[in-house]
Amino acid sequence: MRLRLTPRDTTIIDLLVQAGNALVEGADLLHAVMTAGDADRADLLVKMRDAEHACDDIVHATMRKLNSTFVTPFDREDIYSLASALDDCMDNMEAAADMVVLANPARLPDGVQTQLRVLQEQAKVTAEALPRLHTMKGLEEYWVEINRLENDGDEVWRDMLAELYSGAYEPLELLKVREVIDALEDAADAFESVSHHVETIAVKES
Amino acid sequence: MRLRLTPRDTTIIDLLVQAGNALVEGADLLHAVMTAGDADRADLLVKMRDAEHACDDIVHATMRKLNSTFVTPFDREDIYSLASALDDCMDNMEAAADMVVLANPARLPDGVQTQLRVLQEQAKVTAEALPRLHTMKGLEEYWVEINRLENDGDEVWRDMLAELYSGAYEPLELLKVREVIDALEDAADAFESVSHHVETIAVKES
Amino acid sequence: MRLRLTPRDTTIIDLLVQAGNALVEGADLLHAVMTAGDADRADLLVKMRDAEHACDDIVHATMRKLNSTFVTPFDREDIYSLASALDDCMDNMEAAADMVVLANPARLPDGVQTQLRVLQEQAKVTAEALPRLHTMKGLEEYWVEINRLENDGDEVWRDMLAELYSGAYEPLELLKVREVIDALEDAADAFESVSHHVETIAVKES
Repeated sequence: MRLRLTPRDTTIIDLLVQAGNALVEGADLLHAVMTAGDADRADLLVKMRDAEHACDDIVHATMRKLNSTFVTPFDREDIYSLASALDDCMDNMEAAADMVVLANPARLPDGVQTQLRVLQEQAKVTAEALPRLHTMKGLEEYWVEINRLENDGDEVWRDMLAELYSGAYEPLELLKVREVIDALEDAADAFESVSHHVETIAVKES
Repeated sequence: MRLRLTPRDTTIIDLLVQAGNALVEGADLLHAVMTAGDADRADLLVKMRDAEHACDDIVHATMRKLNSTFVTPFDREDIYSLASALDDCMDNMEAAADMVVLANPARLPDGVQTQLRVLQEQAKVTAEALPRLHTMKGLEEYWVEINRLENDGDEVWRDMLAELYSGAYEPLELLKVREVIDALEDAADAFESVSHHVETIAVKES
Repeated sequence: MRLRLTPRDTTIIDLLVQAGNALVEGADLLHAVMTAGDADRADLLVKMRDAEHACDDIVHATMRKLNSTFVTPFDREDIYSLASALDDCMDNMEAAADMVVLANPARLPDGVQTQLRVLQEQAKVTAEALPRLHTMKGLEEYWVEINRLENDGDEVWRDMLAELYSGAYEPLELLKVREVIDALEDAADAFESVSHHVETIAVKES
């Protein structure tokens, strides 16, 4: 436990909390894009792009605040890495939404529903955990839960992979489906990476 | 050379050494999985999973020790990164073992034998190098050797890739083989990443 | 703004500048390899390999200088990371040059020209920005420009991906082209990563 000799500006934590809330919206939009018909996808992708820009603005506000604040709540570089990791979550979710349109597989395997639910849950527990950076309490249960969710996502990704290589798919359709399930898996990994950065901060504060 | 004003707890180094030894067992099991027939693979995969859990336990013990130790032998974050990197080696080797079962290629190119030998050698020199963190002597030859091995692995990976694209493979079989050789290449990269973290520690200590 | 109590050795910045200049040569050679006929490619690949070794030597000289310098211009680890990131740019460009020979697609889509131009521009603005580490002035415009270029590259990569999945490509040719455009996209990402490391240094200095 470090001694604090100066009052700390916690506005930065509030900005990280805002970024977390943006991820909840992003995960909901991603679910909507993936389950929508072709007719609604274009509109939803525009909303996804807007959500990504909003998250970007929050992250840049965090960076600017970081540059102008003398005493930060945690190590400057750790906040920087955490803000970047939150940004990566949104970028990965937007990339997954794009990919379903770019690759345009004929149909998605059922496991994709599990991947989408995992992302929505990960976004929710991340958004709930970030305000706890004010007190540093209750964070361990957050990263345990993120890890559990990531394992769920990983398991379903592996099952789908085995299905893709079972001989039931033509190579081109296999590649298209693979693009989408990999993009979703990358997004789940990005949420796990956020939890590692929170853990790094917690290790230093303990 | 930094001055040491406090005795350092070196239990953490002993834990890192244990993790290194676990990687030797992991690389041997990976070789066994890859060269086994279908009949023996299930049993070997269970052993691989056990080895991965054992390594996980060691890494978590390292993290807990890190959290409860006031004066660590090196920068706290560097030990954290090194322990995570050792964990990644085991995770990547387990992923490669899984992949040969998931993708199930009809046959593996001969170069896979070289990839497996590289991983066994990398695990061995890593396990031999980690105890040297006590004295910080003889580490340079370790990372030079890891790099040499990684180059060997990379060269054979490239040769197999050229073979895959030569026209001798159907697209589906190409994809299956590619999954396996890429997973092995990722594991070799993970060992190289461990050596970079050791190098980072050595740079700071020098 | 940190106070400087000791004169700083800025030879390290000069070495980073040399690495930046090597990247300009690398990007030009990459363009030459990609647009050459089969007859000239072997010679150009040898030149690419030489340029990569030259860059390697500069990066290793930076590391050695780092180890033997007591007062570095910035945090030791940040310089280490920046030098590694510059090395990654060259490695990725060499990997892209290799890949066009290994995968050997029948023809490359027009968007590859844009990717090559983006890399040449990124190398140029990086080489122009690195000397500004002496004064820390004018760096923001550099990372804004790198980001803009990376977005251009990303957009053309996405367009080519949609084209690959449109049904106009056979699976094998699709895979071959994909290898090349992904390798070029990775190289553009590596330049963006360099700009992030420069930004990290600038954040700490501000």
